[in-house]
Amino acid sequence: MSAGRLIGVGVGPGDPELVTLKAMRALKEADVVVHFAKNGRGSNARAIVAAHLNGGVAELPLVYPVTTEVPRAEPAYRQALREFFDDAAAAVAARLEQGLTVAVICEGDPLFYGSYMHLHARLAPRYPTEVVAGVTGMSGCWSSAGIPIAQGDDVFTVLPGTLPEQELIRRLGEADAAIVMKLGRNLPKVRRALAAACRLDAAIYVERGTMAGAVVMRLAERADDEAPYFAIVLVPGWETRP
Amino acid sequence: MSAGRLIGVGVGPGDPELVTLKAMRALKEADVVVHFAKNGRGSNARAIVAAHLNGGVAELPLVYPVTTEVPRAEPAYRQALREFFDDAAAAVAARLEQGLTVAVICEGDPLFYGSYMHLHARLAPRYPTEVVAGVTGMSGCWSSAGIPIAQGDDVFTVLPGTLPEQELIRRLGEADAAIVMKLGRNLPKVRRALAAACRLDAAIYVERGTMAGAVVMRLAERADDEAPYFAIVLVPGWETRP
Repeated sequence: MSAGRLIGVGVGPGDPELVTLKAMRALKEADVVVHFAKNGRGSNARAIVAAHLNGGVAELPLVYPVTTEVPRAEPAYRQALREFFDDAAAAVAARLEQGLTVAVICEGDPLFYGSYMHLHARLAPRYPTEVVAGVTGMSGCWSSAGIPIAQGDDVFTVLPGTLPEQELIRRLGEADAAIVMKLGRNLPKVRRALAAACRLDAAIYVERGTMAGAVVMRLAERADDEAPYFAIVLVPGWETRP
Repeated sequence: MSAGRLIGVGVGPGDPELVTLKAMRALKEADVVVHFAKNGRGSNARAIVAAHLNGGVAELPLVYPVTTEVPRAEPAYRQALREFFDDAAAAVAARLEQGLTVAVICEGDPLFYGSYMHLHARLAPRYPTEVVAGVTGMSGCWSSAGIPIAQGDDVFTVLPGTLPEQELIRRLGEADAAIVMKLGRNLPKVRRALAAACRLDAAIYVERGTMAGAVVMRLAERADDEAPYFAIVLVPGWETRP
């Protein structure tokens, strides 16, 4: 029996209509649909494609052992995560060995800050593999906000809100356009860094972009409490324009 | 009569299957489909959706007066471009005043280094406007190359190859993951900068990602001649991984 096929399927930022035709085809062709989930919480990727799945298709949820807010430098965190991805890859490999087509669905784009890449690194060298690019969360956010983010010779930078404050300030000062991700409890620090870099007035806060209950507002006007982990801040470039 | 509706429609990186369901709906609903084109060359966006257009739908091509390789700092270039976008916006506005739904199709994502944003800035304050996010060209490139680009706390940076060599070196040295766009005649300079920043060995050259005739190779192995303007270089982050 020949080995099956692994497909990393980007399903976009949240709106089920922002799924591509290619992702739809991958879902139709899949024998098994795999998603990552946090314990006790549903999977965003699974929710996005719920209406698109074949009735009765086999599913394999992969449940993270820890939250992503734990500093990844901690050895115990890294060890737990490594074992989780090793086990997850083994579970997927078992299906591939049976000749099945396995679609791993991923919010946004599979190879851009996505968990799929940990399966990809372990399995792509051994099995036929395809990656279906998806619309990223950040594209969904600036599109629903209607904000041009970068043009021409702009330098565009994605910064995790987990960076030290001084590094955020320095990098914000050097970027023409920037996105700050992973806000969560980092929101007050990110706001201070934007103010210090003289970018706070232009910064836009977006929560649940493209989804029901989306929030788009000037960051300067938002309360300084904790933000959802997947909220982002947009700092548009594009200061000179024709 | 009420005004029509403007829709900026991202059609993805090249593969007609990487068009979203939402873009398909926008094309079906459009009274007029608008695309940007260079004189004497076809439009990539138009080619991507050719098979998806309603038969006989009205079309409006907007033909650039100059190539994008002319330095945008030159006053004559900026003036010509400003007049072009003013005229283009007026032509689109005339359709919107007739109550028509106008879809402006854009390769990649409309608000990420796209020409649509110049229409958006001029028209969105005056007419009902919607933006349909698309899969970016860079996502298409790293997906077709099967290369995880960024994870975790990586800083990700998009650099235009038009930057001065010393600035490229400095910024490449500071980014965990990077994309270099606008290669064209800048390829030898970009290669020197990558070598100076000790990133050349990891750099991947991608040409026509997701399209027929795609080229994926180590940049170190590519000849040092001129590259197509839309070729890009991927510099993966992700040096430590669980």
